[in-house]
Amino acid sequence: MGSPDERRRSDRARTAILTAAAEAVAEVGYAKTSIEGIAARAGVGKQTIYRWWPSKGAVVLDALVTEQPESEWPDTGDLAADLRLVLRATTAEFADEATSATLRAVMIDMQQDAALSDQVMTRMLGPQLAATKRRLEAAQRAGQVADGIDLDVAVEVIFGPVYHRWILRTHPFDEAYADALTELAVRALGPG
Amino acid sequence: MGSPDERRRSDRARTAILTAAAEAVAEVGYAKTSIEGIAARAGVGKQTIYRWWPSKGAVVLDALVTEQPESEWPDTGDLAADLRLVLRATTAEFADEATSATLRAVMIDMQQDAALSDQVMTRMLGPQLAATKRRLEAAQRAGQVADGIDLDVAVEVIFGPVYHRWILRTHPFDEAYADALTELAVRALGPG
Repeated sequence: MGSPDERRRSDRARTAILTAAAEAVAEVGYAKTSIEGIAARAGVGKQTIYRWWPSKGAVVLDALVTEQPESEWPDTGDLAADLRLVLRATTAEFADEATSATLRAVMIDMQQDAALSDQVMTRMLGPQLAATKRRLEAAQRAGQVADGIDLDVAVEVIFGPVYHRWILRTHPFDEAYADALTELAVRALGPG
Repeated sequence: MGSPDERRRSDRARTAILTAAAEAVAEVGYAKTSIEGIAARAGVGKQTIYRWWPSKGAVVLDALVTEQPESEWPDTGDLAADLRLVLRATTAEFADEATSATLRAVMIDMQQDAALSDQVMTRMLGPQLAATKRRLEAAQRAGQVADGIDLDVAVEVIFGPVYHRWILRTHPFDEAYADALTELAVRALGPG
């Protein structure tokens, strides 16, 4: 484990590497990001990175997962309130230029790199979608989501519109948008 | 204008070029597609392409717009029926491997090429989204869409889920999916 000083140095180096990886992907895209580039940005040697991560994909994904908010949904018992909270947070993330650039780089590379796509789905997006489905299952048991609704489709009705706006850059993201989308999702899913 | 024979030859060459452009983008992506490659595939000289199109982007976009179905929506007076028809057609397009590969290539390149993005939005996707909004406006006037619903958000609730499923490859496209999505969209938008 090393001395307390050594551990502090290790922690600092790890944090610097993860930050550098996230910045590199946001700036030049995943394809042009290299272990050398991350090392130079972080002020460490390549061998320091290889001590902890086997590949570029592994370190970049760790950087993104570290940056990701909790995948667990809030559960106040009120689906509409929880949806509003999550959609406001999600749209704020997509509205943030640096986060958006990183996600865009990863999303582009996922389309052409099946291994990266699997990793992102398994470690980052998959857990978020699964958490959303669990929250909807709880809401369905509580009578706030109509019986018989396919919850995989319901998850997409919640997040799909955000992706559409983001990919096609049709309209800006703001809180009014998050709230309008919340209202439509509640209408789509509710028992009424 | 030339003789009838010359016109027939011209039409054949144009069709061969547009087909070659669509195939090239589907196979190697927009970035790696070249005027030379399209010419070779179509069995014509480069100068034949430049006689009709100023650039790679122009010929590729013409190829895609030619392949696109009508952007005008059906209007039977029954929004749910029209939605089902359009969503079945849209998901069938995304389920088709060749079409999906072409769209994926264009969508990736749009993220990195603002001029291409503008062209695609102006000539291909923009008109489809505008036609969708016009159909929803008619439905709102007919009392089939609740007053006060933001129709730009409504358009995304219809198509966003399809993009989400397509980009993340979470679940397959089939008719049951199109119909489940239609049902949720009608619930989201309806006056009930």
